[in-house]
Amino acid sequence: MPTDPTARRLVDLTPDECWTLATTRPVGRLAWNGPHGPTVVPVNFTLDGSNVHIRTTPYSAAAQEGDDSPVSFQVDSIDADDHTGWSVLMRGRAHFDYGGQRVAGGPEPWLSGPRSLPLRVEVIEVSGRRLVASD
Amino acid sequence: MPTDPTARRLVDLTPDECWTLATTRPVGRLAWNGPHGPTVVPVNFTLDGSNVHIRTTPYSAAAQEGDDSPVSFQVDSIDADDHTGWSVLMRGRAHFDYGGQRVAGGPEPWLSGPRSLPLRVEVIEVSGRRLVASD
Repeated sequence: MPTDPTARRLVDLTPDECWTLATTRPVGRLAWNGPHGPTVVPVNFTLDGSNVHIRTTPYSAAAQEGDDSPVSFQVDSIDADDHTGWSVLMRGRAHFDYGGQRVAGGPEPWLSGPRSLPLRVEVIEVSGRRLVASD
Repeated sequence: MPTDPTARRLVDLTPDECWTLATTRPVGRLAWNGPHGPTVVPVNFTLDGSNVHIRTTPYSAAAQEGDDSPVSFQVDSIDADDHTGWSVLMRGRAHFDYGGQRVAGGPEPWLSGPRSLPLRVEVIEVSGRRLVASD
């Protein structure tokens, strides 16, 4: 029987692969569980090998709802034509630095106006999967 | 003072704009709150104006943890060079159809093997924002 050229399967990524792949993307998604269920917002970020660094404002929903909470940070790259790609999920805990000190190597804010609140996601668990052509 | 060409601001999208923009993307992200915190996974999907249709398996974490739960479905399009884009969040409730009946107009599974479990996210609330150049 001929191989189905569209058939794809999922392969687990190692934690090292997850960290390396995540650095290749400019934007990831921060998710937390608020009073209305899960919230997911795109953010730019930097990584330092054990933390995700994001910048937000004290008035953001993330800051209002996510402090010292279990959060996730998700990054992916999907080729919709080829049906291949990968996705990485970093589970951790959110720490907002209300001292507002800029983290060395932290992300440049894209938004004008005050984005003065550094958010560090302390990563506790990393997992990821790659969607590849079936053999 | 000259305008900062990199300055961006967020503009709220109407629900109609959110539905229209979401249909332009092949992949979104399903989020639910499991025992280990929020989980976010990319999925292909179709929309029918009040539901998101996804296909998964009975063995997936989504099916194990998300049935009849508050979930979110997020779609975005970000231009990382220009620092513009948009993001849509659909909050709702997950309904898995263990009868396994194919939804007309539902998504084609990308994965080989059985992806026999239709998941419908009944959308309760839609919101979105666009990142635009500041005037």
